[in-house]
Amino acid sequence: MSVSAYGTLYLLPVGLGECNLEDILPKRNLELIKTLTYFIAENAKEARAFLKQCVYPEISRAQFSLINQHVKTEELQSFLTPLLEGHHIGLMSDAGCPGIADPGAEIIKLAHKKGIRVVPLVGPSSIVLSIMASGFNGQNFAFNGYLPIEKTERTRRIKELELLCVKFKQAQFFIETPYRNANVFEDLLKTLQPTTQLLVATNITLSDECIQVKPISAWKKNSAPEFFKKPTVFGIYL
Amino acid sequence: MSVSAYGTLYLLPVGLGECNLEDILPKRNLELIKTLTYFIAENAKEARAFLKQCVYPEISRAQFSLINQHVKTEELQSFLTPLLEGHHIGLMSDAGCPGIADPGAEIIKLAHKKGIRVVPLVGPSSIVLSIMASGFNGQNFAFNGYLPIEKTERTRRIKELELLCVKFKQAQFFIETPYRNANVFEDLLKTLQPTTQLLVATNITLSDECIQVKPISAWKKNSAPEFFKKPTVFGIYL
Repeated sequence: MSVSAYGTLYLLPVGLGECNLEDILPKRNLELIKTLTYFIAENAKEARAFLKQCVYPEISRAQFSLINQHVKTEELQSFLTPLLEGHHIGLMSDAGCPGIADPGAEIIKLAHKKGIRVVPLVGPSSIVLSIMASGFNGQNFAFNGYLPIEKTERTRRIKELELLCVKFKQAQFFIETPYRNANVFEDLLKTLQPTTQLLVATNITLSDECIQVKPISAWKKNSAPEFFKKPTVFGIYL
Repeated sequence: MSVSAYGTLYLLPVGLGECNLEDILPKRNLELIKTLTYFIAENAKEARAFLKQCVYPEISRAQFSLINQHVKTEELQSFLTPLLEGHHIGLMSDAGCPGIADPGAEIIKLAHKKGIRVVPLVGPSSIVLSIMASGFNGQNFAFNGYLPIEKTERTRRIKELELLCVKFKQAQFFIETPYRNANVFEDLLKTLQPTTQLLVATNITLSDECIQVKPISAWKKNSAPEFFKKPTVFGIYL
């Protein structure tokens, strides 16, 4: 149970690109954000732009603690101080849902350790929306983060993921840095069995959203998706 | 690419229990639903209640096709007819997001096969919100559906999931039929290592939402969560 004198750590999803916030966030989120003073974010500039889009009343009032790979655990601890003093904090990432393929997990872990209440709010995650839209196996799926950068290692990993689909009947999802989408797609077509189903989901929730599922044999006959430098989620299943 | 003359299959998330829809669904969903005539749902009564809550203009106008375990593939095919005739369809489950721990995947699969556009809308999923709030590993996680009902088999499976956490650094999530929560919780405490972290997330998005993460050793010293007959997501990680 949370100690009631503490504040709450709200996990605030953020849009996945340029869009109308009312299309992707419940009204509750937009109202709650306006009541917060303390935020933990990846990037102050992007966080301020998001608050502005939420019609946050007085941006100079908002206080940001910034998480990145260089922040040490002791510093992360200090980010929780407002919570211990009874103030709520909003944790947001640059895009999508905090804690899913995104920094923030360390802060959430520390909050649980101190018995601070953690409340996740509903919002867009390209990974979750891709899993929904895949039509693969919603009872058994895994998200594997990024594939290895090195080609041999990546091919080995693709084969391994296909084997996991077979062995556990588990749909496998992964992402790639957008400028490497074409390389990964090429390796998928070369490595996977012709009957394996491949999901390519690009710019989810944006105006040019494109979600396609085809067997490898059909992808080979068609042109590649238009995913150059566009955030893309890949998924495979049998 | 979708054939533009076809309608779109919208995946419509539904609330996880009694709550204000504006708290959990973007305005876009509530507006889009009102424009649809054709729906695919699990249960007509619950689907109608949801439409009513969305202030759907004329419920007698809404047409429902019902999916359940007994529907054969040929019948599912016929559910897509309005799409082929240019009408949009809303696919909804009883609670949460279609396609995630829920029926609907078969319909989505058929839609992709026919080149019908599939558009997932943002909404609440107890599983996704639990993954966010766990603070476990957002770069590597698996959802495993239900645990086996039989006790020996369930204990074996719990051990297997803990091994997957160790071997792949992959957080493992699963659910249970609410009236069996106490049995599963007991088996988790008996089977897992004292240092393994256990997430118990109950009634997500509802007024008595409770999300707790503790090592097994700490759970053993505390009373069990109040999860009797309440939908609960479990998760483990090291």
